[in-house]
Amino acid sequence: MNIKVIGHYIGKFGELWQQGLTDLVKEGVEGVLADAAIDPASIDAIFVANKAGGSFNEQRHLGALVSEHFTHLPPAMRVEGACASGGLAIIAAQQALLSGLYKTVLVLGVEKMTDVSSGQASAILATAASREKEYGSTFPALYAVLANYHMHRYGTSREQLSSVVVKNHQHALSNPKAQFHKEFTLEQVSNSTLVASPLRLLDCSPISDGVAAVILSSQTSARQTQILGFGQGQDTLALQDRQDLGQLMATKKAATQAFKMASLSQKDIQAIEVHDCFSIAEILATEDLGFFAKGEAAKAVATGKTTYGGQLVVNPSGGLKACGHPVGATGVKQVAFLASLIEAGQFERALAHNVGGSGATAVVNILGKSKK
Amino acid sequence: MNIKVIGHYIGKFGELWQQGLTDLVKEGVEGVLADAAIDPASIDAIFVANKAGGSFNEQRHLGALVSEHFTHLPPAMRVEGACASGGLAIIAAQQALLSGLYKTVLVLGVEKMTDVSSGQASAILATAASREKEYGSTFPALYAVLANYHMHRYGTSREQLSSVVVKNHQHALSNPKAQFHKEFTLEQVSNSTLVASPLRLLDCSPISDGVAAVILSSQTSARQTQILGFGQGQDTLALQDRQDLGQLMATKKAATQAFKMASLSQKDIQAIEVHDCFSIAEILATEDLGFFAKGEAAKAVATGKTTYGGQLVVNPSGGLKACGHPVGATGVKQVAFLASLIEAGQFERALAHNVGGSGATAVVNILGKSKK
Repeated sequence: MNIKVIGHYIGKFGELWQQGLTDLVKEGVEGVLADAAIDPASIDAIFVANKAGGSFNEQRHLGALVSEHFTHLPPAMRVEGACASGGLAIIAAQQALLSGLYKTVLVLGVEKMTDVSSGQASAILATAASREKEYGSTFPALYAVLANYHMHRYGTSREQLSSVVVKNHQHALSNPKAQFHKEFTLEQVSNSTLVASPLRLLDCSPISDGVAAVILSSQTSARQTQILGFGQGQDTLALQDRQDLGQLMATKKAATQAFKMASLSQKDIQAIEVHDCFSIAEILATEDLGFFAKGEAAKAVATGKTTYGGQLVVNPSGGLKACGHPVGATGVKQVAFLASLIEAGQFERALAHNVGGSGATAVVNILGKSKK
Repeated sequence: MNIKVIGHYIGKFGELWQQGLTDLVKEGVEGVLADAAIDPASIDAIFVANKAGGSFNEQRHLGALVSEHFTHLPPAMRVEGACASGGLAIIAAQQALLSGLYKTVLVLGVEKMTDVSSGQASAILATAASREKEYGSTFPALYAVLANYHMHRYGTSREQLSSVVVKNHQHALSNPKAQFHKEFTLEQVSNSTLVASPLRLLDCSPISDGVAAVILSSQTSARQTQILGFGQGQDTLALQDRQDLGQLMATKKAATQAFKMASLSQKDIQAIEVHDCFSIAEILATEDLGFFAKGEAAKAVATGKTTYGGQLVVNPSGGLKACGHPVGATGVKQVAFLASLIEAGQFERALAHNVGGSGATAVVNILGKSKK
């Protein structure tokens, strides 16, 4: 396996009232082609990640919309797995490259969420866990169940949850594309408006617009950052059907596969982007990915082990929490952002972790310049 | 390339008021596993084709919903390319098999369209050609433009359009899964309610519920029907951006690729399922797939060349027109139906043709027991 990231682009995340879905697509295509500095005609196929352009934007043929930006109109398909759509599109693209049918492909993740009200957006998002939506559960409510369980079983504290948020907002300060550039104190997070106990407003990732894109290639290139391994895990859609609310099994399965494919282990990784849709989700992720034992991740965050100078850097972009969460773009942004850090020599190997629903789908991609 | 269709299932198409989306998924999974007679644990991955379960059914994590039917929860992704979603999911599944990562995969296409009103369904469908929707164009209006052009340039007549419909309703009589079992005369079609001139009610495929599934495998099997080649073409989303309204370039590109991969030509094919969302679409398809010269297909239908005893059988299932068109299921149904005919010894080789939007995406799959 030798799939290189030969181009990457991340647009500004935020409430982009001046840009519609088609504007974001255009920005992503032009941005990633400029970064890769390749002939657009060398794009053999396109994989588009988007959760709900039909409902957010009345657009239900997004693959064709992206392909239109190329005079040779490469074949395009949209890939969807709720909030894991970005990670899944990167997996679909790699499967296509490994099949030998294509040499160079574009993966573009995009979501334009602020065309509808926050209430409508929340309702659309909640249908990724539809059996629970029937009982009135929104995503904050479902992750609140996971948080309560974790606090009860492992002693995770309110202040430790807040430390995830403080760290990610600090990280976002140095990311110009982040939605928020604002520091918070532990007290501000712990005292923000209650959404679904114990989760408060500042525990929750925002509703965002944004685009991210990567170009993946099996060809030789001056760009040396590769995807060394990937994996995908599934779990039941509904929390009520799971054996253990203290872990996300889909994340464990995806990580096991990806590390095996890459012939690497957790100690080989220096930076990770994880799916922190809520503060508790980052704690679950770093445990289930195998970086911390169960019950240890919350302490690790609070004692600075997951930021610069610690054991590994978790969410250097600011994560979903502070960089923003334009759903279909998120998984692509994680890979694009880590590729840029590896190219800059900041880290040697890194891992991206993208989750759909309340953990029913999880995707892991491991990046680096070489295996060891 | 040696990808076998080791199982196939088509549920009854129609207005299935007693079955919801989750019921259709269950029926499809159980039906195809029973047909394949394999251990469910041998399914390595799942590809789900669906256009708009979010808007039709408030379900936006359909991959996970299908995976739940298996105790080992195989990795699942949803693939979407408007009305070509079924054909695209079959391509994505083949790319995954050819990558060597998986040995046996399930492709399930499903759409539950009658949970919303006909008006809402039409509005949802039209967003696959959204730039034209802005001008008030629905799908019948767009295909009416293509029909008017074809009639003007090639002399295609009202009666020839009707002959497509009469033939497909005759074919559906012997397909127990078809939505309609009712014969029509040329006069009945030509005099049915005008929808968008020249297209009348009986020129248009219906709004349908339904599920279809296939299991594809690279492993040895007693089942010998293979996919011998596939291709995908794109064109501009909007008709106004195309060079020539007399042809669908995406169909031409998809067919060229598929025939090349299969090392076959049109004369090697005895039956085809084409995307007759409107009567004119079947005429365009049989020309653009290379079975008839431009301007000859309409005469061929009217003189019986595209039914049993003619040159080749077009839409033996009854097509979208009479078998029904549950959007995400259609492309999967075409392959499942042709596989069953090849297994029954009715034909040696066959071709499936699935279109998204007003021709922006086209997919072709060629099936047979062997290349020559």
